[in-house]
Amino acid sequence: VRDCDVLVHDRLVSPELVAEARPDALVLARDGLGQDAVNGLLAELGREGLEVVRLKGGDPFVFGRGGEEALALAEADVPFEVVPGVSSLAAVPAAAGIPLTHRGVSAGVRVLSGTAAETPVDAGTVVVFMGLRTLTRVCEDLIADGLDPSTPAAVISRGTLPDEEVVVAELGRLAEAAEDLEPPALVVVGEVVALRERLRAPALEAAG
Amino acid sequence: VRDCDVLVHDRLVSPELVAEARPDALVLARDGLGQDAVNGLLAELGREGLEVVRLKGGDPFVFGRGGEEALALAEADVPFEVVPGVSSLAAVPAAAGIPLTHRGVSAGVRVLSGTAAETPVDAGTVVVFMGLRTLTRVCEDLIADGLDPSTPAAVISRGTLPDEEVVVAELGRLAEAAEDLEPPALVVVGEVVALRERLRAPALEAAG
Repeated sequence: VRDCDVLVHDRLVSPELVAEARPDALVLARDGLGQDAVNGLLAELGREGLEVVRLKGGDPFVFGRGGEEALALAEADVPFEVVPGVSSLAAVPAAAGIPLTHRGVSAGVRVLSGTAAETPVDAGTVVVFMGLRTLTRVCEDLIADGLDPSTPAAVISRGTLPDEEVVVAELGRLAEAAEDLEPPALVVVGEVVALRERLRAPALEAAG
Repeated sequence: VRDCDVLVHDRLVSPELVAEARPDALVLARDGLGQDAVNGLLAELGREGLEVVRLKGGDPFVFGRGGEEALALAEADVPFEVVPGVSSLAAVPAAAGIPLTHRGVSAGVRVLSGTAAETPVDAGTVVVFMGLRTLTRVCEDLIADGLDPSTPAAVISRGTLPDEEVVVAELGRLAEAAEDLEPPALVVVGEVVALRERLRAPALEAAG
């Protein structure tokens, strides 16, 4: 934020953070711009070689349409990096004293959006914590629950760390494909996994 | 972390962060301690008036058993504060290039754990993003999907901000109870909401 040429921020981002931009940086509030305009703006600024920070509120990849912005950049061949922050999904209930799971009370979370015309009560993506050691059984259980064995799936081992490894396979073959991975690992199942190939960013040059 | 007397950390927390503790701080790796022992240890250290930081990996309140630790502190009358960080649920897929929702691809996320003897495919807690303006319909849809109208539910308006407001009501009465709240708001539905009363921490004195 302190180094960028352009800061494009959501209305809900804290003003203290926006104020950290350089005095000569171009600061753009995203309000009033439609999603297509934001996508186009980011791609255009990136193509011009400017150092752009896009500060998003909420959770960029959970109803935050961050995937659409990333896709626009990837398609425009603009290098980018996703820097995860403190997600409202994790932070808001935690700060309000509500654990989303609790032993003997709740063993899972369904995350939905109120913006659709009808609340889609069936969540499309499945995330499994601590599922590597039991992966064969987890995949069988999900298939028994109705997921197609051909659903795209991924295991992310040591996510965000320098030795992160990602294996992508159909759900029915995932356990075999991931057998050499090490915990900790997160399992993601759903059509969103297929976006990964398209979302690969051109390499960012080393900072500095 | 830099100020605490005792740092109790998970194995998966980054060593760089643990290294920020004062040279004379007591640093305890949690490995090898059962959950009950951790709960008891935190309560005991707190009762002695020590400044304790408990650094958790993953997501403390999504399969992280943070609720159990907070409950032990509340029951021991030990003041505490929950400081949300970067959750693995948000960060790991994002950094791996997988958006958990994406327009036209997935409109929701189910978060499960692989540790149970059988994967509980029905998530117990429901979180709704951007559900305040459509709250009446969202609640009706969830009840039509099988949730009991008496299920504990909460709307958290402007979560984590100084003017945060939380309304708790049964699902069937939530829309009426929350009608004066302002967006942005997160809706949480499930028995975990009832834990909130028990998780209220005794007031922390102002830092310094």
